[in-house]
Amino acid sequence: MTLKAEKSHAKGPARLRLGMVGGGVTAFIGAVHRIASRIDDRFVLVAGALDNDPQRGRDFALSIGIEADRAYDSYQEMIKAEALRPDKVDAIAIVTPNFLHFPVAKAALEAGFHVICEKPMTTTLEDARALAEIVKRTGKKLFLTHTYTGYPMVRQAREMVADGAIGALRRVQVEYAQDWLAAPEEDPEAAGANWRNDPKKAGQGGAIGDIGTHAYNLAAFVAAEEPSHLLAELTALVPGRQVDDDAMVLMRYASGAKGTLWASQVAAGNGNNLSLRIYGATGGLEWWQEKPEELWYTPLGEPRRLLLRNGAGATEAAVSGSRIPAAHPEGYLEAFANLYKDAADVLAGNQQQTLVPDAADGVSGLVFVTACLESASNNGTWVSLDALRNG
Amino acid sequence: MTLKAEKSHAKGPARLRLGMVGGGVTAFIGAVHRIASRIDDRFVLVAGALDNDPQRGRDFALSIGIEADRAYDSYQEMIKAEALRPDKVDAIAIVTPNFLHFPVAKAALEAGFHVICEKPMTTTLEDARALAEIVKRTGKKLFLTHTYTGYPMVRQAREMVADGAIGALRRVQVEYAQDWLAAPEEDPEAAGANWRNDPKKAGQGGAIGDIGTHAYNLAAFVAAEEPSHLLAELTALVPGRQVDDDAMVLMRYASGAKGTLWASQVAAGNGNNLSLRIYGATGGLEWWQEKPEELWYTPLGEPRRLLLRNGAGATEAAVSGSRIPAAHPEGYLEAFANLYKDAADVLAGNQQQTLVPDAADGVSGLVFVTACLESASNNGTWVSLDALRNG
Amino acid sequence: MTLKAEKSHAKGPARLRLGMVGGGVTAFIGAVHRIASRIDDRFVLVAGALDNDPQRGRDFALSIGIEADRAYDSYQEMIKAEALRPDKVDAIAIVTPNFLHFPVAKAALEAGFHVICEKPMTTTLEDARALAEIVKRTGKKLFLTHTYTGYPMVRQAREMVADGAIGALRRVQVEYAQDWLAAPEEDPEAAGANWRNDPKKAGQGGAIGDIGTHAYNLAAFVAAEEPSHLLAELTALVPGRQVDDDAMVLMRYASGAKGTLWASQVAAGNGNNLSLRIYGATGGLEWWQEKPEELWYTPLGEPRRLLLRNGAGATEAAVSGSRIPAAHPEGYLEAFANLYKDAADVLAGNQQQTLVPDAADGVSGLVFVTACLESASNNGTWVSLDALRNG
Amino acid sequence: MTLKAEKSHAKGPARLRLGMVGGGVTAFIGAVHRIASRIDDRFVLVAGALDNDPQRGRDFALSIGIEADRAYDSYQEMIKAEALRPDKVDAIAIVTPNFLHFPVAKAALEAGFHVICEKPMTTTLEDARALAEIVKRTGKKLFLTHTYTGYPMVRQAREMVADGAIGALRRVQVEYAQDWLAAPEEDPEAAGANWRNDPKKAGQGGAIGDIGTHAYNLAAFVAAEEPSHLLAELTALVPGRQVDDDAMVLMRYASGAKGTLWASQVAAGNGNNLSLRIYGATGGLEWWQEKPEELWYTPLGEPRRLLLRNGAGATEAAVSGSRIPAAHPEGYLEAFANLYKDAADVLAGNQQQTLVPDAADGVSGLVFVTACLESASNNGTWVSLDALRNG
Repeated sequence: MTLKAEKSHAKGPARLRLGMVGGGVTAFIGAVHRIASRIDDRFVLVAGALDNDPQRGRDFALSIGIEADRAYDSYQEMIKAEALRPDKVDAIAIVTPNFLHFPVAKAALEAGFHVICEKPMTTTLEDARALAEIVKRTGKKLFLTHTYTGYPMVRQAREMVADGAIGALRRVQVEYAQDWLAAPEEDPEAAGANWRNDPKKAGQGGAIGDIGTHAYNLAAFVAAEEPSHLLAELTALVPGRQVDDDAMVLMRYASGAKGTLWASQVAAGNGNNLSLRIYGATGGLEWWQEKPEELWYTPLGEPRRLLLRNGAGATEAAVSGSRIPAAHPEGYLEAFANLYKDAADVLAGNQQQTLVPDAADGVSGLVFVTACLESASNNGTWVSLDALRNG
Repeated sequence: MTLKAEKSHAKGPARLRLGMVGGGVTAFIGAVHRIASRIDDRFVLVAGALDNDPQRGRDFALSIGIEADRAYDSYQEMIKAEALRPDKVDAIAIVTPNFLHFPVAKAALEAGFHVICEKPMTTTLEDARALAEIVKRTGKKLFLTHTYTGYPMVRQAREMVADGAIGALRRVQVEYAQDWLAAPEEDPEAAGANWRNDPKKAGQGGAIGDIGTHAYNLAAFVAAEEPSHLLAELTALVPGRQVDDDAMVLMRYASGAKGTLWASQVAAGNGNNLSLRIYGATGGLEWWQEKPEELWYTPLGEPRRLLLRNGAGATEAAVSGSRIPAAHPEGYLEAFANLYKDAADVLAGNQQQTLVPDAADGVSGLVFVTACLESASNNGTWVSLDALRNG
Repeated sequence: MTLKAEKSHAKGPARLRLGMVGGGVTAFIGAVHRIASRIDDRFVLVAGALDNDPQRGRDFALSIGIEADRAYDSYQEMIKAEALRPDKVDAIAIVTPNFLHFPVAKAALEAGFHVICEKPMTTTLEDARALAEIVKRTGKKLFLTHTYTGYPMVRQAREMVADGAIGALRRVQVEYAQDWLAAPEEDPEAAGANWRNDPKKAGQGGAIGDIGTHAYNLAAFVAAEEPSHLLAELTALVPGRQVDDDAMVLMRYASGAKGTLWASQVAAGNGNNLSLRIYGATGGLEWWQEKPEELWYTPLGEPRRLLLRNGAGATEAAVSGSRIPAAHPEGYLEAFANLYKDAADVLAGNQQQTLVPDAADGVSGLVFVTACLESASNNGTWVSLDALRNG
Repeated sequence: MTLKAEKSHAKGPARLRLGMVGGGVTAFIGAVHRIASRIDDRFVLVAGALDNDPQRGRDFALSIGIEADRAYDSYQEMIKAEALRPDKVDAIAIVTPNFLHFPVAKAALEAGFHVICEKPMTTTLEDARALAEIVKRTGKKLFLTHTYTGYPMVRQAREMVADGAIGALRRVQVEYAQDWLAAPEEDPEAAGANWRNDPKKAGQGGAIGDIGTHAYNLAAFVAAEEPSHLLAELTALVPGRQVDDDAMVLMRYASGAKGTLWASQVAAGNGNNLSLRIYGATGGLEWWQEKPEELWYTPLGEPRRLLLRNGAGATEAAVSGSRIPAAHPEGYLEAFANLYKDAADVLAGNQQQTLVPDAADGVSGLVFVTACLESASNNGTWVSLDALRNG
């Protein structure tokens, strides 16, 4: 095991205090946030309004070590009470269904708290713009947990593209295929995902909002370039579904490059198959989330190279996002932990710049979804993202 | 080594006589046809008009064992002379640049010869329809060498889909990515491919015609279903190129299924990366040409299975298209040889049905290209393939 | 994302108090233990004697949040002081160079502390036996951190073998190949690993002790069967090295099965390439540490199946060792965290049985190393492990 | 498709005349030889004694296009008759069970014919030495069809090792795992392999002779170095089997390098899983027969590179052993065809040197098997190969 990796990630004992909204006993993503916040020992979870059932929320809060006086019945109560404490939380993590992201984030920011928010940032573009304004006005930070930007090899891809490893951008192929909604609607498994299929709670997009936004963000993060126009084909492939479960989007970049984004939750055999393939005039990069330690790099005309996290050829961002040596697999939770670690560094004043997506990325996500819905409702016309951005 | 595979492919000594048009000393695909025709010992190449430079063509013909009196200066001469011989060729292989497929095939069929023709069948839909008519009228056979339909695992995929292994079709993802045209036009390597970039010789489509037709055919072969509408985005990503080198096509099927086809010749790091992923209501199948012995099958909710050519679970078509046991890799040349072997079986009267694509598939290919060009020239509108089919 | 995985791993707020010996600022494995102990929130690190340089050890302890009065100068001091505290630590993690495992563990156990110890448990078989006796006598627990037994798919393999998935054992192929010691001795990188190459600090075995013991443990864990005899070929392939850097071991099982174990630290291109392939009369299982989420299973005569962590076909141990759904990669740190989580469950009285290796496994490891050294010193004779076990 | 690969493999019309002994209607490897001899159009099969049942042999010969007067009842008859013909065969392919290789090859060589012989060359070392003498004395060529040396990426590996790509040899790991004999003996599938399990027909070794010799030859071919000593563990893992079906061999090289060879025919899930991993002081190379187009190369301390047949970085031997561009898979039959093509070039006087194994390699193979049997019969002692070579 190589000494190159023998470095501590600890930056001293100053742990930040974290509050959480949502993430109750039945919620998957809340547990992920809690683990991620602990891995590098930079946050301590001290307060929570974890459930829309207050009693269940308090019970669960106590069971995970939150003190009774900080196990709140509602986010409103939590924000009000914490604001008055001398040891108030430094940041609030929002892990609720989508429709609550906006009101909770707004309330938290306006009460002086930093926010770590699940994606999509809001359910409407209007709300997203409003929230970005609030961030600006309050001077507080909003971190948007687009998990996949936390993977070291994704960060390395971004750095390599920026350093010219593939030359001028030509084509982006980004896919996010799952199959957990492939069974018919009446299937209890699929039913368990119900808020995602309810436009009132999830927003109007289905797959396009739930995972399409991740795919869009990943491509934009690595390419450091967003398309100017898109055209979308949104489909509910499972009969009876109210929202799309499969989305195909064509993208045009101002530079002349082209892109395609596919998001599907009904492709049998695909677990969490997010991938990015990005090609330029002089090379290509390919990454698959299910094998996150690997980044394939081909300089045009040379053999394919398999770059490994923290291995030979690792860039600065990839090394700094690694805890252990190459070939000792890190994964999804460590990628997520990188977002928390970086947020802590920003909040502790250790660094100004961060790779963690912010409110502007949140707006971009809603611009993307809005454009897709508009294009699809017009049987697939090209929609200007620039117009929506300047909206 | 298992005795299951110990079967002879020889069907007796009656070898068929083959003539060839095109395929001279500088042509790649001509050599492929010759090897493929020999592998199962069902054809003997006895005549050829191999080159548009008659002297070079005759010299090369002699060098590969064709007798002097059957090394012809032109296809016209060959067809005329062979028609008069008692030992005339049984079939003529056409391996010229695209624009010659139609006149050579027409002349050969009308002179009473069967035809084995490279794709795309013609350069215009009008010609394709005319050729299909000629096939019908003459009663002669036309075999269209869509290589990839010769792979045993592709044939197995087709059989599995037909047998309901994936349930009702939902989504087709077919890709054909290469990088051999990624270098700038002035590069001698790319220049060497010049007829493909000349609309007069190759037809109006670039990548869409050269490899998009293969991808389209592969998807149609396996799904046994063709889309009713498509929408295309065709791009010349390399500056100065006259035809598209990258094509993205959205497809709608009458059944409600959706499809996407990507063809690119400029994606760095892709050699001959044709793949098909096809998903239905109860399962999925995935195949990559560069690993042609493998077919991934996932029944929804079960573990992924890796099916191997001639291995456990092999279907009839896969076994009959195999020469050697599983795990002894067969490849591109054997896939191609399956087309020749099957053609021989048809011509020898051993079988009526064949999996080898025919003139109808050739028409489908031109319908596809025509629709793509029409859609692209209208900035991406949906075009009815049915309307063109009934043209 | 499926609700199947939406379960909390928290078991209530009772966190255990952890002390640590070794794991100072330059040590890789100490950081791993600290992260692993945090992931599931079952331990809090409150005390440490982290370095053989007391000042450096105290400074580092403070920097990672240990209170000043529990940042000790030596393990002796820590054990003595903690034993007197009402809030004394529940367990002590030992992450020192190998030669200190025995004295520290002995002192800790005899002072009434549970122990979580790095492998190999001791540097001599005599010490291992003595320590096992002390464990027995004190009634305290000793957990041996053979990391790889914490991987869910390794645990699933063990369960599948026990359930008869491969039938009677025939052959075991276990390999652990690295390349981080491949450079010549004078290379600073290799020099950084110096204690491992010093028989006084690491024990007499080199690769055989450092990683061979992991490989041996992995095979024994999955097969639930240990060989009766072995024959070893130990080599220092890098000139000038004092201990073996490459080891090949043949193994015979009482049942008639055969095994091979290869451990090398000088095989260029191998990062942390531990793998296990295990074959029985009716099936085979294959696992690679660098792709830890995947387990290949082949019932004899059927297609290969790719089993995924927490996916279709997951066994109980694999599900309970998972935090997130299939296809969201967990890795090395989560495998390590499973050891800590399970240790916590035992120490909290939540469960009696555990999959975490214990002192008996530690003795087995030293029996293995001792037998290898004996065989190698006799130019490769068969050595009876049973005789050494009964020693 | 790149013009780099657009070259003809035809070397003019002078096809050589081939006779065949063995390879009747039920024999797998005879069909492979026939296909391989046709692929590059350098041989025509004109004579055969194909079966130990004369009538069945003649019938089959006619069915595959051999003229009646050259469909012989026995190899003796064939050799005698062909020797008298003006158009006699140039070479005789021997594809019989092992015990006939020696008498047929002897008779053929002494009658003035070149020989293309299946491995192992003979069933005893004594016969092997005698045959090598006969080759020398007669001045005729003997080509030994160790198939795997015909793969372009194996040839590239050999060239890279010779060019210093991995530095001084340190370790060789060669494996050949199958599962087609894993079922119990009474199973009809396994019974179909009966001559292989009969020491009178196959020689005394089972797996060690049938596939171990392939593995040994592959390692020696790439390393260009053979071990000086070996130690073997031979096992019949299937109860009741007369010969080994699993063999593990340790090897020592005079240079200090070490090697391991595993051959098994009972490892469930392995089809034809031959692999070679070879490591030196400055790099490593890895190749798997089931993915024969790929060669992994890691210069120590650099990223892994995936070298493809006829792709970027291809060496001379790899290019000249390729028919089609990279990423258009060639396979087992083309590897085999390379042996025939190279044999033709030697016999036609086009080249002096050849990569095709010869009688010396045949002797090496028997030295290897003899040493393994001797070591195993002494419970695993080190046996000097040098002593046997100088025998």
